[in-house]
Amino acid sequence: MKEDRKPFILLTNDDGISAPGLQALHEALSDMADLMVVAPSGEMSAVGHAITLSDPLRVWEFEKDGRFFGYAVKGTPADCVKVAYWALLNGRRKWDVVISGINHGANTGIDIIYSGTVSAATEGAILGIPSFAISVATFRKPDFSVAVDFARKMVNWILDHGLPAGVYLNINVPPLPREEIRGVRLTRQSLAVYEERYEVRRDPRNRVYYWLAGEKVGVESDDEVDEQAIRQGFISVTPLHYDLTSYEALRELRSWSLVP
Amino acid sequence: MKEDRKPFILLTNDDGISAPGLQALHEALSDMADLMVVAPSGEMSAVGHAITLSDPLRVWEFEKDGRFFGYAVKGTPADCVKVAYWALLNGRRKWDVVISGINHGANTGIDIIYSGTVSAATEGAILGIPSFAISVATFRKPDFSVAVDFARKMVNWILDHGLPAGVYLNINVPPLPREEIRGVRLTRQSLAVYEERYEVRRDPRNRVYYWLAGEKVGVESDDEVDEQAIRQGFISVTPLHYDLTSYEALRELRSWSLVP
Repeated sequence: MKEDRKPFILLTNDDGISAPGLQALHEALSDMADLMVVAPSGEMSAVGHAITLSDPLRVWEFEKDGRFFGYAVKGTPADCVKVAYWALLNGRRKWDVVISGINHGANTGIDIIYSGTVSAATEGAILGIPSFAISVATFRKPDFSVAVDFARKMVNWILDHGLPAGVYLNINVPPLPREEIRGVRLTRQSLAVYEERYEVRRDPRNRVYYWLAGEKVGVESDDEVDEQAIRQGFISVTPLHYDLTSYEALRELRSWSLVP
Repeated sequence: MKEDRKPFILLTNDDGISAPGLQALHEALSDMADLMVVAPSGEMSAVGHAITLSDPLRVWEFEKDGRFFGYAVKGTPADCVKVAYWALLNGRRKWDVVISGINHGANTGIDIIYSGTVSAATEGAILGIPSFAISVATFRKPDFSVAVDFARKMVNWILDHGLPAGVYLNINVPPLPREEIRGVRLTRQSLAVYEERYEVRRDPRNRVYYWLAGEKVGVESDDEVDEQAIRQGFISVTPLHYDLTSYEALRELRSWSLVP
């Protein structure tokens, strides 16, 4: 880390600007960094990697305890990173790190393709900025203290090492007391699928509606996958990229004869 | 292709159930397949890979020319595939192929991470069904005839060959007359980035709002990328997967010493 100035860090999330995970992160990093907070005005879970094109984007200043805290955006986490970079900063300065979180609930396995938390880190990586998403893997009331300490370490580490181009990190912290955390494990994304279920209900006018109630079935027990690492008490760190090409299939399909 | 029964195919899209691209596809495939149409009730561009969790999902029967055409869903393309599979089919039958499109406008490069069209094919692949997204690369009034013919060929080809597990195809057809199409090229996703711009405007109450106006800059001229193939007059076929892990970074980062 350069000593002459504090690193400049963007904080965002998908639980919204009032979420305790974001505020805990802000508190923990405020002594070591210049922080800019740009986060959705409300909860945006499972918005995936959406951006707002057809509608205008509202941005307003958000106060906490009577002081300016950051910008609230009526949009998705991806919108937040984009509007912050291209409109609010507008080329005047560039973040050293983008952090999305701390999310309340795991972002692992195929769920990450629906994750607003992860999509904000993806946007950071697209801008060429070292970025990570961080989540606490529980839906109970979480203790963010282990996660915020790890976020601090990750920031210092990233400032020292950088990240490979186009790569960002998806971090998940098990909901355990500090002394029960067994370590940190580099993992891959689990590809285990859900058995989904829709509840069929009727509204007061007797019209049918459906409500998603998913349930994971095919658990991957490979030690290398994110979900297994968390189950075993490790902090899971998965390097991701936004190149969806299957290079293996590309090689395999070369042998096909394709004619239009 | 098995001769004893017609293949069973799901058609969906993100332009909405009334979109001409979907209807052209339906018309072209109706003699060779049993078709099920489940598509968003309205246009859902740039919803990315979103699913509806917090709200109920409305589904209703949609007629065309006085006859049942399919199911309209007030949700995203990913919602359509999920609700069709888990609620409307409910295990009674399984599609042989899932097709998302024909989209009006290209789905290439990093745009595919925001693409509802592509996300529907992703959902098909997650269900273990050979799936593809298909788009015509123009925002002018498109001629879908080349694309529908290619979709027919792809269906036959996929029924003969299958696709590797977890792999789905992203197909883009250049907006050219048939005789000017130079062939089919297997491609990778371009990673070229946008220079974004937000227009800053004021509403009638003098409050500021932002509106995204993107612009591509870093064009990749590698013949292997999707966007270049289209520019050169080829139909682009990119094999994708939903494993976002960067295995290269995973190997590289193994040398890091991570402590919680």
